Amino acid sequence: MNAEIVVIGTEFLLGASVDTNSAWIARGLAAAGFDVQSVRTVGDHEKRLEEVLQSSLARHDLVVATGGLGPTVDDMTRRVAAKVSGHSLVYREDLARGIEEFFRKRNRPCLKANLSQAFTPQGGVLVPNSLGTAPGFIVKVGKSHLVVLPGVPSEMRVMFENTVVPYLKELRPGGAVVRSRVYRTTGMTESQLNETLRDIFESSKNPSMAVTADPEGVDVRLTARSESGEKADQMLEALGKTVLGRLPNHVYGLNEDGLETLVGRLLKMRHLTLSTAESCTGGLIARRLTDVPGSSDYFLRGYVVYSNEAKTDLLQVEGTLLKSRGAVSAEVAKSLAANCRKNSGSSLAVATTGIAGPGGGSDTKPVGQVFIALADESSSQVFEHRFSGDREGIRRRAAQAALELLRRYCLSLPLKD
Amino acid sequence: MNAEIVVIGTEFLLGASVDTNSAWIARGLAAAGFDVQSVRTVGDHEKRLEEVLQSSLARHDLVVATGGLGPTVDDMTRRVAAKVSGHSLVYREDLARGIEEFFRKRNRPCLKANLSQAFTPQGGVLVPNSLGTAPGFIVKVGKSHLVVLPGVPSEMRVMFENTVVPYLKELRPGGAVVRSRVYRTTGMTESQLNETLRDIFESSKNPSMAVTADPEGVDVRLTARSESGEKADQMLEALGKTVLGRLPNHVYGLNEDGLETLVGRLLKMRHLTLSTAESCTGGLIARRLTDVPGSSDYFLRGYVVYSNEAKTDLLQVEGTLLKSRGAVSAEVAKSLAANCRKNSGSSLAVATTGIAGPGGGSDTKPVGQVFIALADESSSQVFEHRFSGDREGIRRRAAQAALELLRRYCLSLPLKD
Repeated sequence: MNAEIVVIGTEFLLGASVDTNSAWIARGLAAAGFDVQSVRTVGDHEKRLEEVLQSSLARHDLVVATGGLGPTVDDMTRRVAAKVSGHSLVYREDLARGIEEFFRKRNRPCLKANLSQAFTPQGGVLVPNSLGTAPGFIVKVGKSHLVVLPGVPSEMRVMFENTVVPYLKELRPGGAVVRSRVYRTTGMTESQLNETLRDIFESSKNPSMAVTADPEGVDVRLTARSESGEKADQMLEALGKTVLGRLPNHVYGLNEDGLETLVGRLLKMRHLTLSTAESCTGGLIARRLTDVPGSSDYFLRGYVVYSNEAKTDLLQVEGTLLKSRGAVSAEVAKSLAANCRKNSGSSLAVATTGIAGPGGGSDTKPVGQVFIALADESSSQVFEHRFSGDREGIRRRAAQAALELLRRYCLSLPLKD
Repeated sequence: MNAEIVVIGTEFLLGASVDTNSAWIARGLAAAGFDVQSVRTVGDHEKRLEEVLQSSLARHDLVVATGGLGPTVDDMTRRVAAKVSGHSLVYREDLARGIEEFFRKRNRPCLKANLSQAFTPQGGVLVPNSLGTAPGFIVKVGKSHLVVLPGVPSEMRVMFENTVVPYLKELRPGGAVVRSRVYRTTGMTESQLNETLRDIFESSKNPSMAVTADPEGVDVRLTARSESGEKADQMLEALGKTVLGRLPNHVYGLNEDGLETLVGRLLKMRHLTLSTAESCTGGLIARRLTDVPGSSDYFLRGYVVYSNEAKTDLLQVEGTLLKSRGAVSAEVAKSLAANCRKNSGSSLAVATTGIAGPGGGSDTKPVGQVFIALADESSSQVFEHRFSGDREGIRRRAAQAALELLRRYCLSLPLKD
């Protein structure tokens, strides 16, 4: 069965708010076996909303609409949904009493407008709202089902899980359960990855494969449809093995985990401790490492050595070296890492120095040039990178490359391809 | 003139990514005088994308599509856009040379797939991409205009501003101009702010007012519609004065600027330099300060003193103090700030120590307790906070409060309400 999500609210069309509901609902629908074909966002505009709901219901087995159930004049979803579904609105005394109770408990006056939320389509299924005053509802329109929920994310989520999911299960959307698995890679570009996996992309329809790229790397998403979750998982497992076989060194994690979580786990397992010396990344590596609860077990300290004085003062980088090679150089990166490790007494240290831009670049040292060094007890090694993107992108790529260097070190993988 | 935004990518329909591009584009189109009527999100599915672009172009003067311009097989926007607009794709040697150059500069191999991005519709307007390899384009389809941009937000934004905005100006959309202004506040909760501005919320329809909250603070957005940009700006200015009058100390900025940008400007104006000593924020303050280009003018260095040893070793916090008061204490925060300033030779230093959770809290020192100290040449002052939220939320609130302390210091405002 296919589905469409309709997001209602002029704030999204003005760019005043970012819609996060549709992504959340999309995950829930996919897990319930629905094929979400599109998301439409419309404003608080009666005629347009009517058109969108009508055309959406004509083309989809299921339409989930959120927003526009509030008590104010511009909240018209209840009225329009009743109209397109051919149900009349009825005033439910039990809902009205619940709304009055809600305000009484909070010592706030219950206005007449608030009681307008006690109107609901006759013959529909009520979707109770335990956190607010706007109930949702589900109505049948021909062969299609229209689910209407409020736009407040916390309310919508509870209502979806408690009432909509059980309702959808009853529909038995044709058995197809959709499961996804994401292989997170770094150090390969989208096109290198495409080259490596091209035949799978082209031949595998189920599971299907898609890639998304951000400065931290490229994610390969496999999506399987099957009559059962178990079967779908087996399909993902089988194709996943092939993908992993093609990318022996570049997959660092599955699904949501960031590289900082994995690196933390590896350091802990190997009883290693870490310190950081950051110039161009300015604290980003330390922040990511300390995002992880319990990181004090392995992360000892970080130096943000933004000025040359700080490099010399805190990490004993020689003034002559800074002069002869420049702050952005392989030698300075190595010196930062080695002295950071020595001063901290940590097993490992990583250091970055580079040109994040937008200014400060030259022909020999262009914006995006970054040196990343890793020191352990016996030596320090340095790698030169040329990152693309704006200041933020370059900094994010550099921090990710430093974490990747740590991952490869901990796993005894080649440090560079 | 009306407009629709089309977001392309299966990741959005699976709920794997949240689309932020459409909100950003919507703001730009509103500012240019377009009436954005809806946003549609479709997957990487050739036939559906074709249908959506066709029906969208039939109903709108302007369609802005993002995503699906990458080098991989599932990137089909270029091909489909050419088809629905009736233009054929041509291989442009100049673009191909640019793409090769992009890779050469970064010492990376340019694959055949990358050169597929040199195909662009004949007769269209090219939208150059200065940050990546995927150019965009604009084509006329009947009386409508189709703008196609890549989905990578940093690339898309620069391209929109540099090439699309000037193109749209030429179209003279002639409708009501929509202008917005955002007053950024910190240190007040959403409900405190609501209470302060309640009457304006309820009475002002044009400009209208809306608030959005995140861990860094609450934004108050005013949106005005008028026949001219000038008139809309005047309306915003007038209501803005009233808002500012009610919030004399809490508004730190306008529109997109983060607090780190403002603090940087203030430090520079006052010829002050800064260093940071971070325990619970783990580098987040340093990272935000160095997000700003040119921050090396005033930011000297940062210490991430996560372990007690680092606090003693690097910043001479006395072991007896750590024992008697604990690492999370007003005294340790003050000592961190004062010694950070002294060691660095900076005019100012801020320090944080606290419990970000989820573990590590106790009855006397609960999760969310954070001490923030500010030292200048004559003294150091410390403030205790109890932040709510999860680990990330607490860290973000603490970093924002530290920057806010610097702002108030630079402006000689009361450091605490």
